[in-house]
Amino acid sequence: MDNPVLVEVTRGNIVESRHRGSIAIVDADGKLAFSAGDVEQGIFARSAIKALQAIPMVESGAAEALAFDDAELALACASHNGEETHANSARIMLFKAGLTEEDLMCGTQWPKHMDDCVKLIKTDESPCQLHNNCSGKHAGFLAMAKTLGVSTDNYIGYDHPVQAEIRNVLEQMGGSILGRDTCGTDGCSIPTYAMEQQKTALAFARFATGVGLDPVRANATEVLYEACVNEPYMVAGKNRFCTEIMDIFKGRVFVKVGAEGVFCAALPELGFGVTLKCDDGAERGAEVMMASVIRSLLPLSEDEEKGLHAWEHQQLMNRRDILVGEVRPVEDIKRLLKAL
Amino acid sequence: MDNPVLVEVTRGNIVESRHRGSIAIVDADGKLAFSAGDVEQGIFARSAIKALQAIPMVESGAAEALAFDDAELALACASHNGEETHANSARIMLFKAGLTEEDLMCGTQWPKHMDDCVKLIKTDESPCQLHNNCSGKHAGFLAMAKTLGVSTDNYIGYDHPVQAEIRNVLEQMGGSILGRDTCGTDGCSIPTYAMEQQKTALAFARFATGVGLDPVRANATEVLYEACVNEPYMVAGKNRFCTEIMDIFKGRVFVKVGAEGVFCAALPELGFGVTLKCDDGAERGAEVMMASVIRSLLPLSEDEEKGLHAWEHQQLMNRRDILVGEVRPVEDIKRLLKAL
Repeated sequence: MDNPVLVEVTRGNIVESRHRGSIAIVDADGKLAFSAGDVEQGIFARSAIKALQAIPMVESGAAEALAFDDAELALACASHNGEETHANSARIMLFKAGLTEEDLMCGTQWPKHMDDCVKLIKTDESPCQLHNNCSGKHAGFLAMAKTLGVSTDNYIGYDHPVQAEIRNVLEQMGGSILGRDTCGTDGCSIPTYAMEQQKTALAFARFATGVGLDPVRANATEVLYEACVNEPYMVAGKNRFCTEIMDIFKGRVFVKVGAEGVFCAALPELGFGVTLKCDDGAERGAEVMMASVIRSLLPLSEDEEKGLHAWEHQQLMNRRDILVGEVRPVEDIKRLLKAL
Repeated sequence: MDNPVLVEVTRGNIVESRHRGSIAIVDADGKLAFSAGDVEQGIFARSAIKALQAIPMVESGAAEALAFDDAELALACASHNGEETHANSARIMLFKAGLTEEDLMCGTQWPKHMDDCVKLIKTDESPCQLHNNCSGKHAGFLAMAKTLGVSTDNYIGYDHPVQAEIRNVLEQMGGSILGRDTCGTDGCSIPTYAMEQQKTALAFARFATGVGLDPVRANATEVLYEACVNEPYMVAGKNRFCTEIMDIFKGRVFVKVGAEGVFCAALPELGFGVTLKCDDGAERGAEVMMASVIRSLLPLSEDEEKGLHAWEHQQLMNRRDILVGEVRPVEDIKRLLKAL
């Protein structure tokens, strides 16, 4: 495997660091529209597929039975900052299901941004499982278990009906065969599967278009797509790529980050799904790659251009707010992606 | 440039991410004893060369005039955690020079570890420049300016006598020619220079041995080497590679991390200097590379073996403390380094 350098980090006039990666852009028939690097490799898409993992919650009727609104549906697809809004919304989702924070099995996590940590500490509160970036997803899993009438105990287990159904949906959406041999444990303790990168992209092309899905599933993917693009703040929060990009693109783009430098995206107007992985797991590298993909694929309004540019050419400021460098796409990525 | 994959990150049984890098191991005559990847590239060694940047402080007589003890000398070479001990020690260094925190120009930074942030917040204190990981180095610069009788204003400037003298010392130690064309701005606002990787390693072979240095400089490097290995806690702090490795190796190894995945090391008993760079800037990648280098070069006691293993095979725990994977050297790095 020798994926190309796609992103470089400069300091002054010199390139200081480099990020390699692979990109798969696939249509809803599974045709690879564009690729960089090895897109047949199995990758853990981690949190980038939370919107797929939320499909059973909608299909099962749990979301409707508990009257989850768009903000709550978006939170079920989120890797949120653990801001007050996010934690409260997760608490309400659990309340609607007759559950509490204690039923979660995602683990405790400090909020992502220091100002939110300071707020907690100043009020003598400790971070809890509601602040875990995955709390909305876990609340969704628990809601589904309750609606199915199965035990909520160890809902994160490989054999639990919730995880088994998620595995089915992932297999059907992308066409991968998933099992224990390709299974790892995610940061929030649920099973995560190494899936062929271009098959994950296919899943998002279907998510974007509904093509090839039965009506119930097509409805579920539409409900989740709309929820995320309508409530992008719930998907991540302040100063975050997913929130800002979905905010700027007003429904044209669904995009979701995953740990270890993964992104998935759905672009309905082109019918494309995108999955990319930064080899080394760096989020900054993956963000710049994703921004470059969006620029290359979509005609941009002035606002979209401006908002996207800030994420595609990330200015590096030092501790006295002096501009010292930039994280930016290499010339090659621009050429490659323009050649589409 | 196509540096080899040296470190891999696993999840379950699958490799999830990969780190490439370059390693130069050089003796005090400048002979390359071992290399991986392109070691003629210019790299910003960043904070990994703080011990070289501290040489003028000792040579100028400032350290002696102000009676800096080993802990303070080590802090001048440190990228510390901003723990109470570190901040207080920086304050005392400045006090000895007749200066205060306000004279620093490194910028404010939160302590590295959350428990130290919580301590500050609980006592209604804000982080200040003393908590900046470079505050000891900056206190050393200011001490030198005072002792030289030059202005302390803008002591971080390219043309300030302190920075000019550091540039001279770096050129003499490694043999690079440094100038504005290879200069960037560091995180703490001082000039940082892209130096040929193997020349930086040569500088650390000389730092390790004193070979080729005039007596005044050889004394300065010995003073700084001894200070760091005697007071490793001041060089970094709790849960940090540099502190733990220097603690375990009791004088056999000097090692120092720099931002963007750099490490420099000095191994007096072999007469080697080491400089390595993780291509993508990841600290975890650089740590595992450095641990592998040490293992490959030095015969290990049982304690050294145990302490080193924990950094060479870094266990990845998730938010519920479940072991989910490992950061580890690839088989190749072991073979390459054993072939020395």
